[in-house]
Amino acid sequence: MILQKLLGVEFPIIQAPMAGVQGSALAVAVSNAGGVGSLPCAMLGLDAMRQELAVMKAQTTKPYNVNFFCHAQPEFDASRDSAWRQALSPYYIEYGIDANAILPGPGRSPFSAAAADVLEEFKPAVVSFHFGLPTAELMARVRRWGARILSSATTVEEALWLEAHGVDAVIAQGFEAGGHRGSFLSEDISAQVGTFALVPQIVEAVKIPVIAAGGIADAKGIAAAMALGAAGVQIGTAYLLCAEATTSAVHRAILKSDAARVTAMTNLFSGRPARGIANRLMREIGPMSATAPAFPLATAAIAPLRAKAESLGKGDFSPLWAGQNTSGCKEVSASILTRELAAPLQNAR
Amino acid sequence: MILQKLLGVEFPIIQAPMAGVQGSALAVAVSNAGGVGSLPCAMLGLDAMRQELAVMKAQTTKPYNVNFFCHAQPEFDASRDSAWRQALSPYYIEYGIDANAILPGPGRSPFSAAAADVLEEFKPAVVSFHFGLPTAELMARVRRWGARILSSATTVEEALWLEAHGVDAVIAQGFEAGGHRGSFLSEDISAQVGTFALVPQIVEAVKIPVIAAGGIADAKGIAAAMALGAAGVQIGTAYLLCAEATTSAVHRAILKSDAARVTAMTNLFSGRPARGIANRLMREIGPMSATAPAFPLATAAIAPLRAKAESLGKGDFSPLWAGQNTSGCKEVSASILTRELAAPLQNAR
Repeated sequence: MILQKLLGVEFPIIQAPMAGVQGSALAVAVSNAGGVGSLPCAMLGLDAMRQELAVMKAQTTKPYNVNFFCHAQPEFDASRDSAWRQALSPYYIEYGIDANAILPGPGRSPFSAAAADVLEEFKPAVVSFHFGLPTAELMARVRRWGARILSSATTVEEALWLEAHGVDAVIAQGFEAGGHRGSFLSEDISAQVGTFALVPQIVEAVKIPVIAAGGIADAKGIAAAMALGAAGVQIGTAYLLCAEATTSAVHRAILKSDAARVTAMTNLFSGRPARGIANRLMREIGPMSATAPAFPLATAAIAPLRAKAESLGKGDFSPLWAGQNTSGCKEVSASILTRELAAPLQNAR
Repeated sequence: MILQKLLGVEFPIIQAPMAGVQGSALAVAVSNAGGVGSLPCAMLGLDAMRQELAVMKAQTTKPYNVNFFCHAQPEFDASRDSAWRQALSPYYIEYGIDANAILPGPGRSPFSAAAADVLEEFKPAVVSFHFGLPTAELMARVRRWGARILSSATTVEEALWLEAHGVDAVIAQGFEAGGHRGSFLSEDISAQVGTFALVPQIVEAVKIPVIAAGGIADAKGIAAAMALGAAGVQIGTAYLLCAEATTSAVHRAILKSDAARVTAMTNLFSGRPARGIANRLMREIGPMSATAPAFPLATAAIAPLRAKAESLGKGDFSPLWAGQNTSGCKEVSASILTRELAAPLQNAR
């Protein structure tokens, strides 16, 4: 019960923050069902974030998590960007897109003092970070209202680093997990570790509670993660078909097809490795490209291709984020799914 | 108890066959302790195999497993081989090795009628294959003496294929596993699946018992695998430091060091992807190379570098096979380790 006490919730189940496929509605449903709902803020401007937080405040009195990326913004590299557009040029021609008219996208902003100002109005009980942690000053600001701080580790080294830098619990993000790898000490994806190997080794290495993530799709998966020593779990993929998720029609259709069985880590859509269902772009260019611009600048060049393909009902250029185990995806309310996931935990008490 | 009944053993624990680091001694110890000891035959000639089987017969009355590769032997490709030696030439120069004097190695032979002849003299209770299955004719020969047949699947598709081709149980080999990937329907390693995601999906897809492999290091790992629906487990890495293993001094020293935390899939040592501890060759050339000759022909060019480096106490050119979780490695007898792994299973009965 260590994680439940720490976060003030009934079940040690965190709904993974998934920027682009969910907002406050999913988080509210999970928090109200006794888990930890998460609001992903990586792709929200400050006003949109304030609006979403206002919804959270109005619709739940339970603890919830607010998630931020904390990458360093890269310099724009004109020659790399141009090489990347060159690599994509056959697709621009195919879709009749003027490559010179593509604007740099809004991208994703790292956690900032301005974001902390907005957060302070709402004082969320839990704040989680991806790609490491923000500055000590920003950490202290979040601490001030008593928030618990979480972040993801993809290796034992990253878990030790996060513990040393003051997180309250660490999310052990296994190789199976969908979306962006939380890696921040190494960019070598050949060394990424599966959940089954990562969780027990991080449990052994740190003193704080460990939350298992990656490949956990149902109550059996939760039991297995607990057997490996996890204090709780973070589950994303299983929520992708829930009524409260904003997952696109194209993404939903592919998640329900056999194509969802094959995923890969790819940097084509954002510039950082993230796991998604293999689609045309990933197959034709290869899922990892040295030419893709640095995170988050790679997004802009793909955006018009994605829009055009999706308007034709195709996911050929969409980031179809998903983990390696889509067997838990259900088209039900997230509150029902959360209660189903938690049922054996309740019976065990 | 379905797997125990099928294989005629006390515990649903298979010691993974590990060619190059063990022979009959390890297999005998595990079988006599109530698990399934495995004799790897991929690198044994027929005489050596007969000798090892005679030892098994003399030293245990319990069921044991005999393991074979069943790859297709490739044509020797002189230009690819020469390109590969060219890539390795700085190392040949560094070690004073005459690249032209290197002989093609003995390599590894696939299962054959001649091997079946030898096996028939001993009628092992279990025969397992890697890289798919042999011909229907050879399968029928093995069946004739009542042997149970196992093989490894790295995807749901491979598990369904193996079930359709008559295996008695399927080994779900997760991404975390050490040594050669059992893949046979796809060569795309970017699509390899972690144990946590692979096991439940194969359990759902097939009717035969599923044996979990990859990242399982101790009794907690066994409990977790069972929670995911596995009928048993196959464990390799944890046995590498056992007294009965023939793991080299260099390999043992590295297994006991922090270096063992970083492994990667590499095709540099044999031509097929296999997981080993990252060493100098893997770091400098990159763990996967398109230049490396087809399996098993890549072995020959590395052999003299490996021998020279090992004579200096270095594992820079050795295949340091290991899975992603070396936390279960213990310098004890394999019979003690097997009983430790099985202890909670006994208490549960």
